[in-house]
Amino acid sequence: MRAILMYGAGDVRVEDVPDSIIKQPTDALVRITASCVCGSDLWPYGSMSPADGPARMGHEFIGIVEDTGSEVTTIKKGDLVVSPFAISDGTCEFCREGLQTSCTHAEAGFWDTLSDEGGQAEAARVPLADGTLVKLPVAADSALMPSLLTLSDVFGTGFHAAKAGGVTAGTRVTVIGDGAVGLLAVLSAKRLGAEQIILMGRHKARTDLGRDFGATDVVSARGEDGIAQVRELAGGHGTHVVLEAVGNMHAYEQAVAVARPGGVISRVGVPQYEEAPIGFGSLFGPNLRLAGGPAPVRAYIEELMPDILDGTIEPGKVFDATTDLDGVPAGYQDMADRNRLKVLVKP
Amino acid sequence: MRAILMYGAGDVRVEDVPDSIIKQPTDALVRITASCVCGSDLWPYGSMSPADGPARMGHEFIGIVEDTGSEVTTIKKGDLVVSPFAISDGTCEFCREGLQTSCTHAEAGFWDTLSDEGGQAEAARVPLADGTLVKLPVAADSALMPSLLTLSDVFGTGFHAAKAGGVTAGTRVTVIGDGAVGLLAVLSAKRLGAEQIILMGRHKARTDLGRDFGATDVVSARGEDGIAQVRELAGGHGTHVVLEAVGNMHAYEQAVAVARPGGVISRVGVPQYEEAPIGFGSLFGPNLRLAGGPAPVRAYIEELMPDILDGTIEPGKVFDATTDLDGVPAGYQDMADRNRLKVLVKP
Repeated sequence: MRAILMYGAGDVRVEDVPDSIIKQPTDALVRITASCVCGSDLWPYGSMSPADGPARMGHEFIGIVEDTGSEVTTIKKGDLVVSPFAISDGTCEFCREGLQTSCTHAEAGFWDTLSDEGGQAEAARVPLADGTLVKLPVAADSALMPSLLTLSDVFGTGFHAAKAGGVTAGTRVTVIGDGAVGLLAVLSAKRLGAEQIILMGRHKARTDLGRDFGATDVVSARGEDGIAQVRELAGGHGTHVVLEAVGNMHAYEQAVAVARPGGVISRVGVPQYEEAPIGFGSLFGPNLRLAGGPAPVRAYIEELMPDILDGTIEPGKVFDATTDLDGVPAGYQDMADRNRLKVLVKP
Repeated sequence: MRAILMYGAGDVRVEDVPDSIIKQPTDALVRITASCVCGSDLWPYGSMSPADGPARMGHEFIGIVEDTGSEVTTIKKGDLVVSPFAISDGTCEFCREGLQTSCTHAEAGFWDTLSDEGGQAEAARVPLADGTLVKLPVAADSALMPSLLTLSDVFGTGFHAAKAGGVTAGTRVTVIGDGAVGLLAVLSAKRLGAEQIILMGRHKARTDLGRDFGATDVVSARGEDGIAQVRELAGGHGTHVVLEAVGNMHAYEQAVAVARPGGVISRVGVPQYEEAPIGFGSLFGPNLRLAGGPAPVRAYIEELMPDILDGTIEPGKVFDATTDLDGVPAGYQDMADRNRLKVLVKP
């Protein structure tokens, strides 16, 4: 079968790989009908050493179940399913609490850490299928497919930012980042009743979509200017909640600067740093809190799907291009160049 | 009048200083009847450069109001009052929310930042007296004095740790640090209904007091051993809440290691670092949250005082020595040597 491999920074290829097959009795084999490129894929695309490649790519997909292991009970051949970016068994103490990204099962983990499977491919072996996959009540050619595909990562991740940040009715929120996750953090904050949603971003087509999703204000300035504008818009001291959907140090520092004393910075952009300021001069002095992490999107799918199915929300608007596998290398480059927001892949 | 001055690391002196006097119409002049040495005073005692001295010391005290400025309305001459370690006006938006440590008034701030006043002295000018001071309904010679004095900092700070950490009925908690704040974090966690309170500390007299305050388990081992013991005691994955009452990097790293995925580290020990690990390998991956900061103890005094007045709790047990001003330099050394837990000062 064909799959996407990354050989190093800027080097993405379509290649033939061994067919995915059932290996464990808890596996499902899924023929992928819709996948995509993630903003987080752009980190290795920008910096991966050839020594770390080639790596299978892709952690967001929808597909049709082709076969299941003998112990799989909740899905069957022919089902249309969505896979979260994390594999989880659904039964451990963390899964039961809704923190599937900390599942303790030996086979649990992130798609990105599997060497021989990936979502940017014709098919995938899904470990722990009962815990991981969720059946979709539509056909594979449904017009809702882009929006349903966001349940695999970016919508659930934006929603996790807002939930972990404690957004409720009346909250003032700053969203840092106009990528797909940032825009869906806007949609999620709106959904949770935020009173003010200030989107920091510079790409007009994206911030326009952000306004469509519920942003009340857009700040395109960066650095001190941007910080001053957000603080003023929020009444002088910043917003109580800041959703950080980028992951680099600049975004973190911006988040600290626009957070209101006593407020919370909720991070869902994968940190491209390990150490950062958290002492008296940054978080401690103003009693700022830090929250977030990899989103347990599995926990949110049932909650978020109904509004997609009935057309109340359309998170799939973050996709502004569709391609087949052959177009994926160019799709990476288009996203890296910020010419495309998010590329949907139909293998 | 006489006051304590720190000239540099290890160099604490009793000296004559200009008498404190009313300067602003919102000031009160307080004759100090009980003060103390704080664990946080030991940081400069260990490292202060002579170039930064001499500095007035002390930020926790009780005293009798001797005079008030013309605009002071809530306290009067003769009142016995307690002062939190932060000065606040009581009317700004943060004070009204209970975050008095972020008071926006120009005169607000910490006692430790004032160059000409301090709690380790015979008297003090208290700025913003209406917002800062709280009247005590007892006489200055009350046997409750040690416990009431803890309302100025260490009890409120331990309580802030537990509140900011979200301790409620049934929570499993680790407390890092067997100083006065750590022990009162134990008492606070118990008060909030914690099911399990694991105290990490090595000084038996202190950890015995911790058990008296409500610790269910004591772990004296440090490093990997201590971490393994806490995790095992808590069911294998650590505790959902960790109260960090020390402030150095070792304590922070220990907190990260014993926090259960999805849990919260609540810091009240003043960080002796600015940068620390918060990336995927520490906080982000397991969705750990970070909370805490300088405690708005003013917000907690009315809540915590009744149980002291009726004898339900006795946080003043953290004082294991009493001295006059002349004994303060030796008191610093005794606390630095861990021969004394906390020294009460009767000027």
